Amino acid sequence: MASMLRLPSLLSPSKPLLRRRLPAARLAASAASRGQASAATGAAAPAATETRGGDREGQVTPRSVDFNAWYTDVIAAAELADYGPVRGTMVIRPYGYAIWEAIQDYLNVKFKETGHSNMYFPQFIPYSFIEKEASHVEGFSPELALVTIGGGKELEEKLVVRPTSETIVNHMFTKWIQSYRDLPLMINQWANVTRWEMRTKPFIRTLEFLWQEGHTAHATLEEAEKEAMQMIDVYTKFAYEQASIPVIPGRKSRVETFAGANRTYTIEAMMGDKKALQAGTSHNLGQNFSRAFGTQFMDENGQIEHVWQTSWAISTRFVGGIIMTHGDDAGLMLPPRIAPIQVIIVPIWKKGDEKSAVLEAVDSVQKLLKEAGIRVKVDDSELRTPGWKFNHYEMKGIPVRIEIGPRDVTNKSVVVSRRDVPGKQGKEFGVSMEPSILVNHIKGRLDDIQASLLQKAITFRDSNIVDVSSYGELKEAISEGKWARGPWSASDADELKVKEETSATIRCYPFEQPEGTKKCFMTGNPAEEVAIFAKSY
Amino acid sequence: MASMLRLPSLLSPSKPLLRRRLPAARLAASAASRGQASAATGAAAPAATETRGGDREGQVTPRSVDFNAWYTDVIAAAELADYGPVRGTMVIRPYGYAIWEAIQDYLNVKFKETGHSNMYFPQFIPYSFIEKEASHVEGFSPELALVTIGGGKELEEKLVVRPTSETIVNHMFTKWIQSYRDLPLMINQWANVTRWEMRTKPFIRTLEFLWQEGHTAHATLEEAEKEAMQMIDVYTKFAYEQASIPVIPGRKSRVETFAGANRTYTIEAMMGDKKALQAGTSHNLGQNFSRAFGTQFMDENGQIEHVWQTSWAISTRFVGGIIMTHGDDAGLMLPPRIAPIQVIIVPIWKKGDEKSAVLEAVDSVQKLLKEAGIRVKVDDSELRTPGWKFNHYEMKGIPVRIEIGPRDVTNKSVVVSRRDVPGKQGKEFGVSMEPSILVNHIKGRLDDIQASLLQKAITFRDSNIVDVSSYGELKEAISEGKWARGPWSASDADELKVKEETSATIRCYPFEQPEGTKKCFMTGNPAEEVAIFAKSY
Repeated sequence: MASMLRLPSLLSPSKPLLRRRLPAARLAASAASRGQASAATGAAAPAATETRGGDREGQVTPRSVDFNAWYTDVIAAAELADYGPVRGTMVIRPYGYAIWEAIQDYLNVKFKETGHSNMYFPQFIPYSFIEKEASHVEGFSPELALVTIGGGKELEEKLVVRPTSETIVNHMFTKWIQSYRDLPLMINQWANVTRWEMRTKPFIRTLEFLWQEGHTAHATLEEAEKEAMQMIDVYTKFAYEQASIPVIPGRKSRVETFAGANRTYTIEAMMGDKKALQAGTSHNLGQNFSRAFGTQFMDENGQIEHVWQTSWAISTRFVGGIIMTHGDDAGLMLPPRIAPIQVIIVPIWKKGDEKSAVLEAVDSVQKLLKEAGIRVKVDDSELRTPGWKFNHYEMKGIPVRIEIGPRDVTNKSVVVSRRDVPGKQGKEFGVSMEPSILVNHIKGRLDDIQASLLQKAITFRDSNIVDVSSYGELKEAISEGKWARGPWSASDADELKVKEETSATIRCYPFEQPEGTKKCFMTGNPAEEVAIFAKSY
Repeated sequence: MASMLRLPSLLSPSKPLLRRRLPAARLAASAASRGQASAATGAAAPAATETRGGDREGQVTPRSVDFNAWYTDVIAAAELADYGPVRGTMVIRPYGYAIWEAIQDYLNVKFKETGHSNMYFPQFIPYSFIEKEASHVEGFSPELALVTIGGGKELEEKLVVRPTSETIVNHMFTKWIQSYRDLPLMINQWANVTRWEMRTKPFIRTLEFLWQEGHTAHATLEEAEKEAMQMIDVYTKFAYEQASIPVIPGRKSRVETFAGANRTYTIEAMMGDKKALQAGTSHNLGQNFSRAFGTQFMDENGQIEHVWQTSWAISTRFVGGIIMTHGDDAGLMLPPRIAPIQVIIVPIWKKGDEKSAVLEAVDSVQKLLKEAGIRVKVDDSELRTPGWKFNHYEMKGIPVRIEIGPRDVTNKSVVVSRRDVPGKQGKEFGVSMEPSILVNHIKGRLDDIQASLLQKAITFRDSNIVDVSSYGELKEAISEGKWARGPWSASDADELKVKEETSATIRCYPFEQPEGTKKCFMTGNPAEEVAIFAKSY
C-alpha cells in the first residue's frame, strides 16, 4: 500500500458497509442516474451486497430523490462511518475521522492562541453533582447513561457518564480558584460524551459523540460575556473559512437556551434540504454553576465573589454538517482546507510500454505537490479502471483530480478536474507540468473551490430565507421547507405554539439585525429583534 | 496573561492541590532540605494550606525519604494532576496534559508513517461481546464498569464501558473484511478506557485513563508477528529517544501475557525506586479474537481463513514513568524533547531604570529562540521573586533556565542553567547573546540534557540488575529492591511461587539474551532464555 499521503491506509479499496438495505426502486433510480458509474462497478457480486454489505458505490440514492437516504448512503459509500453494535452508537471510520482531525487541528491552534490550555476531566460524575444546578438536571436527566456496577459490586452512588462537564469542572474549579490572581482560568478538553438519544442519525445525533468543550471562569460578567462572544466568533470564522459553511451566528431564545446558561450563542447552518443544523454553541453561564458549586474568589478589594463562567462546544456533528451542506448526487464534496486528501492523481495507460513513463510522471507530480504542502494521493492500483476511480474519488469528495496519460507525458502536461464543477466544464486539459506553473495552478484551483463552495452555499441560504411579517407568512415559508425571519417579541408560550403547529423553532436572534422599528409578527407589539425560525435536525 | 508560549495559560501562579495531608514530620524534613525555597514561599498563608490546598511548593517530600510521598507531592506541586471526585479517578491538569500531548504528537506521526489510520469505536460494548473470548472475559470481568440504566430505563443488556476494544473492533472487522484485498487492516484510536482498579495511583493506575490502542488484522501469522514486533520497536525508540527512558524490551511469560493474546511484548522501565513499570505492550493475538468473532477472509486461492491480529497500547501511565525515572528532590525533570516548555527566561532587575533594558533583551532572546523552534516562556511577573521562580521552574522540570540581568545586558550575554546539573556546576555565565551563538548554545544544551538523562538512567538501571544463578540469589537481589536476571525454564506454578514468596514477577524475557548454554536457576534444567524478575507497579 502506497504511503505517500497524510493518511496512508485510508483509501484501500475496501468496502463501504452501512447495512441499511436499499429498496429495489431506489436502487434502480440510483443506477439509472449514474450511467457510467454503475457500468464501472458492474463487476461487484450482487450476492455479497446481500450478505455482508459489498460494493455499493453505484447505489447511492440521488439527493433530490430522498435526502435522508442519500445522506446515509454517502456515509456508507464514502466510508465515513458505520453503525456500532449498541443502538444509536457510531463507529467513525478513518476517512470520517480524518475530517474530524482537520477540524481539531484548526481549532486546537485557535484555542491556544486565545489563551486556553487543554486538559482532561474524568468522565464519571457522581449523580449528586448533576442535581446541584436545577435547570441543568432538568435538561439532562432524561438523557443520562448510568454506571451502577463497578468491579462486580453495586455502587453506593450511581455514576453519570458525562453528557457535558460543567458540574465536574466546577467541582475542580472550586478547589483551584481562590484569588482574582487565579483568574481567568481558561481550559478546553477533547473528549467523548454520552447522551441517551432516542432518535439517532450518524454524526448528527448519536448516543456517544466526540467534541471539545471549553470551560472558563472570570472575575466579571463582562469578561465572561466577552469570552462567550469570542468563542462563537472563532466557530463562525472556522465555519466560513475552513468548512465553507455560511452559518448564521446569533443568540438562542430563552426556550432554546442551554440547561444552566444565562445566554446561549449559536451558529446555525442551512443543510441541503434547508433544515437548520445547530453547528456549535457558546454559553454565558453567569454564576449559575459557581453558586451551585461554591466556586468563589477573593477580588482585589478582599471581597469574596462567585466566578462568572462560560462553556462552548463543537462536536463530530459538524462532520454531518459538512456532508449535508456540500454533497451532491455524486457523493461527498469536501472544502479543500479540511479535505484529508486535496488532490487525487489517477494514472492512465493502455499498453504496457506506456506504463513506466506515465508512472514516472505521476511520481514527479506527486512529489512536487507534496513538497508544496498539498495533501496528495496517487491511486495506481491495477485492480480498478480509471472510470471506477473517477467515481470513487468523486464519492469521497476529493476537491481536485489530476489525470496523467501517455499523451500528457508527451506534452508535458496534465488534465485537472474540479470536483465542484461537473463534466467537461470542470475539466482543464494541457495544464503544464512545469513545477511552478503546476503548483500555482493547483493551489489556485483549491482556493477557487474553497471560495466557490462558500459562495454557492451563501446563495442557497439567502434564497431560502423568507422575511415574514405575519404568522401566516411564517407558516407558508416553513411549509415550503424554508427559513422564516421576522420581528419577534412574543411569549415563550407563543414560541412553543409555533413549534407545535409548524415544527419550526427559533434557531436564533441573528447578530446581524435590520435597522428601523419592528413589530412582532405574532402579537403586533413592538419588537427589538428579528428571529429566525426553521425546522431543524 | 502573556501568550508567548505554546501553552499560554498553563503556568499561571495558581495553586497545586493534591489534597493528601502531609504529616508534620515530613513537612519539617522537607522544609529543612530546601532552605532558600521555603524562605521564598514563606509568605503563603498556612491556613490556606489546611483548607483549600494552598501553596505547597516548599513542601515536597525528598525523594530519598519517601519515594511514594515524593511522587504524589511532585504531581501536586508541578500541577500535573489532581484527584477526581470519584474514587480512583484523576484530573489531568494542563501541564500534565501537555506532556501527554507531546507523547501523542510523536506517536501519531510514527503510527501514520507505519501505515495506520486513526478512527474511533464506541466505548459501550454489549456485555455478551466480552464473554466471547474465554481468557479475555476471565482477565477483564473483575474490572468492569457496567452501564445498566440509559435514558431513565433499565437496559435489556448491560453495557461494558470499554476496558480495551478488541471485542468491538473484531465485531466491526468482521463486517469490513471479506477478501485478502482488505488486508492488512491497520488502525489506531486515541481514547479513554475504564478499569475498576482497587488500588490506584495518579497516572500509574487509575479507574479511567487515556491511551492509544492499535488494532490490526493480517492474512498470515508471520505478518501479525512482524507487526507486533514493529510496534514494540516504535515504543522502544520513543522511550529511548524522546523520553530518555532506557526500557528493556522483551516477551512476557505465559502467566503475564495479555488476556486473549498468544504473545505479549513489553517495554519494562526501572523507576527511581527500582520498581519496574510496564510502560507499553504489543500483543500478537493469533486467531483468538477472529475465531471468537468469526472474522474471516477469502485468501488468494479462494480459501476462507480467520485473520491474524495484533493490538498494542501506550497510556497516560507513561507520564508517571517519566516522573519516576528522572525526577529528583527539587521536583520534576523533563527530557527536552517532550518538555512542553524547554527554556524558561527569568528577567532580573532591582532598580526601576534597569527594567526596560532587561525586558527588551529578554524579549529579543525569546523571539530568537522561538524562531529557532525552541519552546520558550518568559516569566516577567512582578508578584514573585527570581528565587521563587528558580525553584518553581525547577519543580516543573524545565530543562534550561536563562537569567538576564542588568550586567548581562551590558555584556550582551546571558546566564544559562541546566536543570539536570544542580548548583554552580550547571550554570554558565557570559553566554553571548549573538543570535547564532546563543541559538546553537541552547540547542546544544538541550541535546546534552536529553542524552545525559538517558545515560544517567542507563547507568542506574545497569547497576541495579543482578545476574542470578540460584533462587537464593534471586531472593537476595529482590530483597535489596533490585532486578534479578537469570536463566528460567521452570513452570507457571514455580513463577507464581516466586511471586508469592518475593512479590517479584517475570517482567520479561528480554530480546537481548546472553550467549551460551544456560541452566534454569530454579530447577537446574536447561533453559533457553534468561528472564528478568522484579517488583513492579
